[in-house]
Amino acid sequence: MPFWCVESTVGDPFGSSVMDKITSLEACDILCDAKSKGLIDFTSTHDDDIVTWDPANPMDDQDPSSECYKTIRALKEKMDKVGLKMKMVTCSLHGNTVFRNGGLTNPDPDIRVLAAQKVMRTLRIGNFFGAEYFTYWVARDGYECQFAVPWDRAYKYLEAGLNLATRYIKENKLSIKYCTIEPKPNEPRGEMFLATTGHALGLISRLEDPSMWGVNPELLQHEGMTNLSATNAAGMAIHAGKMPFLHVGNQKAGQFDNDSPILTGMDGLKEMISVLWILEKLDWKGHIEFDNHVLRTDAAPGSANSIQVRKDFIKFNVESYRMAEKKAEDLAANKDLNTLRAAMLDKSSPMLKALESYDLKALQEAKIDYKKVNEAPVSNANIDYAFNKALLGM
Amino acid sequence: MPFWCVESTVGDPFGSSVMDKITSLEACDILCDAKSKGLIDFTSTHDDDIVTWDPANPMDDQDPSSECYKTIRALKEKMDKVGLKMKMVTCSLHGNTVFRNGGLTNPDPDIRVLAAQKVMRTLRIGNFFGAEYFTYWVARDGYECQFAVPWDRAYKYLEAGLNLATRYIKENKLSIKYCTIEPKPNEPRGEMFLATTGHALGLISRLEDPSMWGVNPELLQHEGMTNLSATNAAGMAIHAGKMPFLHVGNQKAGQFDNDSPILTGMDGLKEMISVLWILEKLDWKGHIEFDNHVLRTDAAPGSANSIQVRKDFIKFNVESYRMAEKKAEDLAANKDLNTLRAAMLDKSSPMLKALESYDLKALQEAKIDYKKVNEAPVSNANIDYAFNKALLGM
Amino acid sequence: MPFWCVESTVGDPFGSSVMDKITSLEACDILCDAKSKGLIDFTSTHDDDIVTWDPANPMDDQDPSSECYKTIRALKEKMDKVGLKMKMVTCSLHGNTVFRNGGLTNPDPDIRVLAAQKVMRTLRIGNFFGAEYFTYWVARDGYECQFAVPWDRAYKYLEAGLNLATRYIKENKLSIKYCTIEPKPNEPRGEMFLATTGHALGLISRLEDPSMWGVNPELLQHEGMTNLSATNAAGMAIHAGKMPFLHVGNQKAGQFDNDSPILTGMDGLKEMISVLWILEKLDWKGHIEFDNHVLRTDAAPGSANSIQVRKDFIKFNVESYRMAEKKAEDLAANKDLNTLRAAMLDKSSPMLKALESYDLKALQEAKIDYKKVNEAPVSNANIDYAFNKALLGM
Amino acid sequence: MPFWCVESTVGDPFGSSVMDKITSLEACDILCDAKSKGLIDFTSTHDDDIVTWDPANPMDDQDPSSECYKTIRALKEKMDKVGLKMKMVTCSLHGNTVFRNGGLTNPDPDIRVLAAQKVMRTLRIGNFFGAEYFTYWVARDGYECQFAVPWDRAYKYLEAGLNLATRYIKENKLSIKYCTIEPKPNEPRGEMFLATTGHALGLISRLEDPSMWGVNPELLQHEGMTNLSATNAAGMAIHAGKMPFLHVGNQKAGQFDNDSPILTGMDGLKEMISVLWILEKLDWKGHIEFDNHVLRTDAAPGSANSIQVRKDFIKFNVESYRMAEKKAEDLAANKDLNTLRAAMLDKSSPMLKALESYDLKALQEAKIDYKKVNEAPVSNANIDYAFNKALLGM
Repeated sequence: MPFWCVESTVGDPFGSSVMDKITSLEACDILCDAKSKGLIDFTSTHDDDIVTWDPANPMDDQDPSSECYKTIRALKEKMDKVGLKMKMVTCSLHGNTVFRNGGLTNPDPDIRVLAAQKVMRTLRIGNFFGAEYFTYWVARDGYECQFAVPWDRAYKYLEAGLNLATRYIKENKLSIKYCTIEPKPNEPRGEMFLATTGHALGLISRLEDPSMWGVNPELLQHEGMTNLSATNAAGMAIHAGKMPFLHVGNQKAGQFDNDSPILTGMDGLKEMISVLWILEKLDWKGHIEFDNHVLRTDAAPGSANSIQVRKDFIKFNVESYRMAEKKAEDLAANKDLNTLRAAMLDKSSPMLKALESYDLKALQEAKIDYKKVNEAPVSNANIDYAFNKALLGM
Repeated sequence: MPFWCVESTVGDPFGSSVMDKITSLEACDILCDAKSKGLIDFTSTHDDDIVTWDPANPMDDQDPSSECYKTIRALKEKMDKVGLKMKMVTCSLHGNTVFRNGGLTNPDPDIRVLAAQKVMRTLRIGNFFGAEYFTYWVARDGYECQFAVPWDRAYKYLEAGLNLATRYIKENKLSIKYCTIEPKPNEPRGEMFLATTGHALGLISRLEDPSMWGVNPELLQHEGMTNLSATNAAGMAIHAGKMPFLHVGNQKAGQFDNDSPILTGMDGLKEMISVLWILEKLDWKGHIEFDNHVLRTDAAPGSANSIQVRKDFIKFNVESYRMAEKKAEDLAANKDLNTLRAAMLDKSSPMLKALESYDLKALQEAKIDYKKVNEAPVSNANIDYAFNKALLGM
Repeated sequence: MPFWCVESTVGDPFGSSVMDKITSLEACDILCDAKSKGLIDFTSTHDDDIVTWDPANPMDDQDPSSECYKTIRALKEKMDKVGLKMKMVTCSLHGNTVFRNGGLTNPDPDIRVLAAQKVMRTLRIGNFFGAEYFTYWVARDGYECQFAVPWDRAYKYLEAGLNLATRYIKENKLSIKYCTIEPKPNEPRGEMFLATTGHALGLISRLEDPSMWGVNPELLQHEGMTNLSATNAAGMAIHAGKMPFLHVGNQKAGQFDNDSPILTGMDGLKEMISVLWILEKLDWKGHIEFDNHVLRTDAAPGSANSIQVRKDFIKFNVESYRMAEKKAEDLAANKDLNTLRAAMLDKSSPMLKALESYDLKALQEAKIDYKKVNEAPVSNANIDYAFNKALLGM
Repeated sequence: MPFWCVESTVGDPFGSSVMDKITSLEACDILCDAKSKGLIDFTSTHDDDIVTWDPANPMDDQDPSSECYKTIRALKEKMDKVGLKMKMVTCSLHGNTVFRNGGLTNPDPDIRVLAAQKVMRTLRIGNFFGAEYFTYWVARDGYECQFAVPWDRAYKYLEAGLNLATRYIKENKLSIKYCTIEPKPNEPRGEMFLATTGHALGLISRLEDPSMWGVNPELLQHEGMTNLSATNAAGMAIHAGKMPFLHVGNQKAGQFDNDSPILTGMDGLKEMISVLWILEKLDWKGHIEFDNHVLRTDAAPGSANSIQVRKDFIKFNVESYRMAEKKAEDLAANKDLNTLRAAMLDKSSPMLKALESYDLKALQEAKIDYKKVNEAPVSNANIDYAFNKALLGM
């Protein structure tokens, strides 16, 4: 459960914050409480969630007299006490107004320098906490007006920004072992340079060290925003060996970024549980991070609510997730379902070897009984029905 | 202008064909006529568009007594006479009912063998015509029911299928120099394994020989179907050096695959022209292929219409395209517009060198006047306005 | 289960029919078999599903020597034998190519006359079967090119077409008691004049006899195609007292018209069951009609499959529907869930009476404790969680 | 140009306000300046845009000692001086956190009372300014969790809320002559009760006095958010005689509410200009109101920018609008285009009279030459092409 989810005051473009603001130390207490209760194992943070960036002092994290220096130590002390790990850090290039026209891809070189300084500071802070991952989410690297984009340089800027992060990590031997891209199709910008899990995978192959980079899809939200499929995102990223973790929440397809708590909302039960079932079937070893906030309707102002609503929110998310995970495990372990799948998916054939070994000659000469295979019905729907029944516990 | 666009009888799921069917020889005459009139330079085809696949005779193209053998020669003779090139071939893994549950990724190995045989035949036919490109469009490689997908193997099947094509090309020293993936988010299947230009680029990095593979986006259609941006697809693919050609047509965003003629329909003028403008600005050297069909409302049954409507359709598309291309060239050459862009996009800074050379130390120590850059307004809208004015010829 | 769903050969824009064609008498046998087995109670039909329209003989249903006359009697005899009712008839203004540019709203007056003749014939056929309902679905009444629409007349044509139907029913004292509009946002046309349940309700208020007209949403498909909500469509239409029946199937949001069997596909369990739960809660007395087809992947060619696949399809749909209905009934009857809802939704207040009676003075003078109501948390998510748990049977 | 557009500080869910806040008096000065320069004729406002609601003093507008009383008089004095009219008032039921779970449809009766009080205050303020229109936009009247909605009462609450407004207007003989609904599909809520122009028209027919109510679509934004068409919204609402004014701006289809300035962004030129062309062709007598804000990228912090950026924004919008309007007028007046349209849309037929008079007998007996009409090609695309050419000024 990341700091930003707990700190969110759930304002939206049509109404102000509902919740009172809390400090990062208060947020940390809430997270440590959740750790103590066995609800969570680790957390994540943007730099600004815990120590606000001061562009005049980009190295404040190294200065013992600074607020930043003291705060990160106070936070770490709290976290160490309960064994709460900082798993991932990410640099906010969206909150500060200076990045309103882009962070890593801002056309103004001076702003790209500010972005670079902010990324380096974030990496150092991550290192201080012993974070394993650094995440670049696309933030404001995009556009609304295609004629105002430097098409000959935009992706170069993006690649340079990401290469800079890995160079800095390596040169300084930081704790971060792996970096991820979190793609998103739109919002806050009209179009993002890296819209989907596919786009992230495509870009990674062009970076200096692709082995340092993977993708953390935000499911169901970011793929669902343009009616793409969360199952596909997870399936392709895992197949590529490039999904160390994922972000979870719920989304009504084709809308603004809902960031609703997992399973909460109009639909998404089947899709979310099927994603978790894929993780089970593929024996995935990554980790799950929440990335959502309390429904704005369910937040409440006032100091009495300020801590309690946030604690309830964590508990609610964890319980919802565990319900989904339990169902996914049950589906994955269900022998009848696995048998049904095997009957359709594990069909044997003397040609299997030729297919796997690219035996072009054998493939070319094979005699397949076209009429037989063409008239043999398959039933995807029967498999789906059996899973529906199990999903509904009927 | 491909054979399939000319041959289309424009049926749809709610109504039968409007146009009378024509043979591939008749289609070829129409295309040759268009070449003679200077409307087109080259064409493309699915195997089945010109010579129907017979699964019992997968090598019929090599058999001088076969209909296939004779037909491709008759077609080539016609094409050679007017200098019409066959630029690209693609294998239909969607038309024949045997592939209804997938082509390269069909769970049934025997059907994957049929797909392999059909791909190899297509490549040989392409070679016969001297085609430069082979295209894999995602066809029916996808799913409606995520629980009926072999997630541990689906992308392996896909990669194997594509690797098989390049192996066959190389082993047989065929004319094909480069292959492309044409991605699509959905339709005919519920979800496609390669939904967008990004997904295609992501997969290519995992193929045996990525240097043999690129992407041919279908713009505005395939990206627009899920509200993604054609400019982004073109921009990213060109940056990656992986867009040898593209398919063009028009699309109402968020709908079924419209395949409307270029510029024709509810909107899309600005988006399509901006894509062509990007091609100009990036000095792109690829080629443009139409991929659309006559509006079903504008087709008409009866032999009197059969040839004329199709000829008119080609002419209409070419004229519409030339109108868009002319406008794009004008925009690209417009000095005022270029000056306006340069003022915002080519800002100089003493830090440019450090950014380009990843001089981490210099970047870290740079003093940027935050207040100054933060309070300096930029105006994407002004650039957009100037382009709008030029677009509207006002 | 309508004739058209059983007869469908599941072709799509990218591939030909998978299933062999069957006659309407064969389809009738399949339906009667389903009635005998207790799977269905009634059926529905387009005119062309049972007796193809011949524009040269628009009154063939009245001519004892015609094929039409004989066929409808043969069908009725079969249906009467097992007690299968023809509940609704609808006129196909989409299948025949003459209506490719619109039916009731075709700009060509002669084609509007053909449409009127076809509607009247359909109404007489419906009357012959004792049908209660006539349905107008939007078919091809729409446009791709907004500049080619007669905006001053398009909706007038539409209203005239619908008024004509009710006039004909009344003048001829036909069996039809009520008519419905089935809205759809797009496909086969780019834009439809009546895109949603809301648009249908809006138009009805302008018809000659609004009391004769309601709406039959197709859920989840038609609202889901543009990411709108099935719950909203059902809720608003029932509130207006204008939903005598609805069509059901499944849909991946934001795609082409999937027409997948109910519950079958990527998602939709929660949304579909919630629609049925709303029907329960509102004590709705209408009826449910399937409107979907077998997954194209699951169909199969060959005469051996021709009847069996279709029978299995009906059984599959009914079982899937009954599973959803059972779950919806359980949710509606669940006391804990109802108590949870009541706690939030049935809050009492001394002001209730003033609100209901529009007592403006009392409302104006009321003293509400703003701080108290503002700081009182509500929890939509808790209600949702409890329903999720019950949905998943956990 | 409404107060809220000028006052917007363009924060978004991922970043804080860019612009410095200004007071309503400062906003008024900017608007009066625009009026003096001939840029605008009238303005509109939410209650809270000019005088913040104090729930403890719901009648403050009547109290000469209140801030509200003084401010509205100060504003009116400024406006009168330059002849700036207050055309419309609308009640913000979205900004204040107490309405986070709904305004008119809030399940808590006490909050519905607060909403009623706020609406009445808004109406009185509107009356003070002599406003002609009151607008209800759907704000937070919707839901994210369908199981937490009182489906038996939700639309009743909505109708009661709207009826209350008209009763209050009539009983107090206020200046407001007509009310409008501004529909929206989602955002800030997951689903809105009145999603589209169609839904608004549907609801109006159920209100106490439908003659008092119309709809003001926000085009291209609100229909485009779910990929529906602005042309259709305008066409249907004008046909119903229920569109006194509309809101304008730009939108990338299928995204969050962009509220971009008119014509500004990825696409939309053709769609927006076609809407204005429809208004011309239908001789529409309503008025146009801007409803959008400066691109967040193009805003800037700091007092130096605070007034100037806002003034530039008005000018930019007006110039963009005038460019679109000029083009629409040119298209509407273009004889060649009108001739082309007439050739297809004004086809005469001896049957026209029978169609218009519902002469069922004549229609039934008409002999139409099916083959002739079926084989006669029409060309929507040619009309579209001619308009494209004119649109592009080529």
